[in-house]
Amino acid sequence: MTQRDDMDEVLERLRQAVGPGQCLAGPEIGPAYLSDTMHALAGPGPLALLRPRSVEQVAAVLAVCHTARVALVVQGGRTGLAGGATPLPGCVLLSLELMRGVLEIDAAAATITVWAGTTLQEVQEAAWAAGFFYPVDLGGRGSCQIGGNIGTNAGGNRVLRYGMTREQVVGLEAVLADGTVLSSLGKMLKNNTGYDLKQLFIGSEGTLGVVTRAVLRLQPQPRSTCTALCAVRDYGAVLQLLQHMRQALPGTLSAFELMWPDFYALVTALPERAPPLPHGHGGYLLLEALGSEQEADQARFERVLAAALEAGIVDDAVIAQSGAQAAALWAVRDGSAELRRVFWPHVGFDISIPTSELGEFVAACREALRSRWPEVQMVFFGHVGDSNIHIGVKVGDGEQPEHEVDELVYGLVRRWHGSVSAEHGIGVLKRAWLGFSRSEDELAAMRRLKLALDPHLILNPGKIF
Amino acid sequence: MTQRDDMDEVLERLRQAVGPGQCLAGPEIGPAYLSDTMHALAGPGPLALLRPRSVEQVAAVLAVCHTARVALVVQGGRTGLAGGATPLPGCVLLSLELMRGVLEIDAAAATITVWAGTTLQEVQEAAWAAGFFYPVDLGGRGSCQIGGNIGTNAGGNRVLRYGMTREQVVGLEAVLADGTVLSSLGKMLKNNTGYDLKQLFIGSEGTLGVVTRAVLRLQPQPRSTCTALCAVRDYGAVLQLLQHMRQALPGTLSAFELMWPDFYALVTALPERAPPLPHGHGGYLLLEALGSEQEADQARFERVLAAALEAGIVDDAVIAQSGAQAAALWAVRDGSAELRRVFWPHVGFDISIPTSELGEFVAACREALRSRWPEVQMVFFGHVGDSNIHIGVKVGDGEQPEHEVDELVYGLVRRWHGSVSAEHGIGVLKRAWLGFSRSEDELAAMRRLKLALDPHLILNPGKIF
Repeated sequence: MTQRDDMDEVLERLRQAVGPGQCLAGPEIGPAYLSDTMHALAGPGPLALLRPRSVEQVAAVLAVCHTARVALVVQGGRTGLAGGATPLPGCVLLSLELMRGVLEIDAAAATITVWAGTTLQEVQEAAWAAGFFYPVDLGGRGSCQIGGNIGTNAGGNRVLRYGMTREQVVGLEAVLADGTVLSSLGKMLKNNTGYDLKQLFIGSEGTLGVVTRAVLRLQPQPRSTCTALCAVRDYGAVLQLLQHMRQALPGTLSAFELMWPDFYALVTALPERAPPLPHGHGGYLLLEALGSEQEADQARFERVLAAALEAGIVDDAVIAQSGAQAAALWAVRDGSAELRRVFWPHVGFDISIPTSELGEFVAACREALRSRWPEVQMVFFGHVGDSNIHIGVKVGDGEQPEHEVDELVYGLVRRWHGSVSAEHGIGVLKRAWLGFSRSEDELAAMRRLKLALDPHLILNPGKIF
Repeated sequence: MTQRDDMDEVLERLRQAVGPGQCLAGPEIGPAYLSDTMHALAGPGPLALLRPRSVEQVAAVLAVCHTARVALVVQGGRTGLAGGATPLPGCVLLSLELMRGVLEIDAAAATITVWAGTTLQEVQEAAWAAGFFYPVDLGGRGSCQIGGNIGTNAGGNRVLRYGMTREQVVGLEAVLADGTVLSSLGKMLKNNTGYDLKQLFIGSEGTLGVVTRAVLRLQPQPRSTCTALCAVRDYGAVLQLLQHMRQALPGTLSAFELMWPDFYALVTALPERAPPLPHGHGGYLLLEALGSEQEADQARFERVLAAALEAGIVDDAVIAQSGAQAAALWAVRDGSAELRRVFWPHVGFDISIPTSELGEFVAACREALRSRWPEVQMVFFGHVGDSNIHIGVKVGDGEQPEHEVDELVYGLVRRWHGSVSAEHGIGVLKRAWLGFSRSEDELAAMRRLKLALDPHLILNPGKIF
């Protein structure tokens, strides 16, 4: 029997696992499935695209791949920024797009139970319609799926207050490589009965199992929003303000976003983004608090900022007096979405450094880049309250010396004991740098876990490791 | 060579690993080490008690045990309620009590780095002295150690607002069975670089590795405390009040503790615990919110409760107007600590049931117990906002039919898809009931992880599984 015959047989078994209409092969597989945001398939296409409709079908697909030793790549909305969902040549592609929808909202438990293929926006909207708030939010909300959010431990805005996706997951169902279904869809916040298996699958980028359903924690709807843009002289003042705001607005501070002057100058040069505060300051901070009573919360927010101005921590501030004004302030920070248009090509970074040392790190990074490439342009901005910043580095207008820039910046991250991936994961694009944030012993322990749960290494091989 | 000779040799190697003064054997081992709160060693004593002073010594001890296939039991403060730290006959006992103290407090990162042998109270006090708040709190605070808190994912008061110990752990260092040190002591809140290994050790009760150091998240000091006791007619009103309070006090509600009338009657009969509200209501709730401005927060708290009274959700309420009054209200709830004196002997439970179904569950449990033992006395109380309740069941004054009571109550927990251990862990005492909350497939996956990280099964054998 030739290898081709083998594969025909596998394909036939896969068809039986999900039914012929849900198993596409060759040219039937649309081009959208062949790449994700940052990375595309190189080489021959996938063996098949499977779109199961039930947990049993997912389990059957995995069992076939496990037995046949065929690689399986699970895809969510393919909006990831690390290439974790890019297909591999000859692999089985698994899309959960037909396993979509809300199964239950339990108001007393404050949980929502959903299929993994549900988009983030659908979860947000269903929660809102039931009088709740699902706090994870990111640019890809309309297409990214909860399964992908869990697989990458997605962060985004408001992590400062509500945590990353990991903190939202109360219960989880995942299918192991051999088709075993681990179902733990309880709605209890406290549950210490043996190992908390769900933690393994969160952030494992489809390499340890396929998430099929999840119970997520819901929050009360914010009934007040207070927003301000502050200008400060330097990073020392940023830290003072962070302490001040944490102390004064415990439990409600939801954004503490720093824009270094280079970023602020670039985005406020865009149309409809006139600078709300003049240029020339050492840093610009977007602050937000989400509460329950607009009038009382706004009064407190203004008192707290007035105290910061009086104490000389803040040099200038604009406090939004309406939703429209708040949106205009956010538009400045969200100018980051335009970087691919107005600051292109560039090499981008998503890193973490202990908040206490971020100021020093940025200065060192800036100096090192400039001394290597005198013509370099840079933008620094990010979720400083979460220890997470994004960096854009542009060396001239042509092809970027990507590897050299990576090497320089990640080298500094290593020296500062930081993380080479704060929220985007490792996928394929950061694989070479994983060892800058994790020791050999940690990587060996990860491989032991991988082998224990996926002995034939069929799940998303070549990702992370 | 006899087995005795073998053990003498192992003992000699252990002595070399930590130095002779830190390796005690036979009668040198004090009786305190031979039991924990709920369970005592049965049979011959441990081979040795080791008290290492460094991570390297811990690693050396583990390597010796791994090579010699000798069981190792790690102990914190021995305050656990599931027998997880009870020694095994012939085992090596490892105490981290000499690896104690605060290594660093980083104000900007809002983290504290500590040795695993530091007591909870020492962490709380060091955090407070630095202007911060470490929110995990429980009765054993003076003797329980952070390593034990992490090993059992300790909960206690205020989980509703701040989460369990898992949510506090930012970085962790743990030593695997073979002596490999996994050190990830970063202070970044966001770090998605491969599997989040620390999650494995949290709540694994010393069966997957020995925690040596941890980086914990700190919170701002609460500068206001609002406390009330409310009486409601039934569990439906409890749920309405929970929704109301969550919505009205987002981010600050820190306690939502329900006392069923049986518990309330028992504890308010104790001296110095006069009932703050009359008997005869359907349930009593202790509410607390921690904020930043006493006057404004108290005014809001009172507005919110007034609205609940007006809406008919709450039938009666006492709002503390001073710290002393708040302490008197907490004394009622903390009457649970007296149950071993005034409600003894009894069979105790620490379980979770989805908050939405807890009322039904309690009614069913009460009925089933009463129809089995007509003379039974019961108390129900707990952290309803966290889906966690405690139950005390007293069948007459003599020896309790413990197994039968367990079987009945845990049987109901299974039927309600609840958790047989909300916050105390499994240890040895709940091992028989683990399968009531976890499927065979989940247990098999846990065993695979155990084998992957501890192939000779030397770490706390017989616990959990």
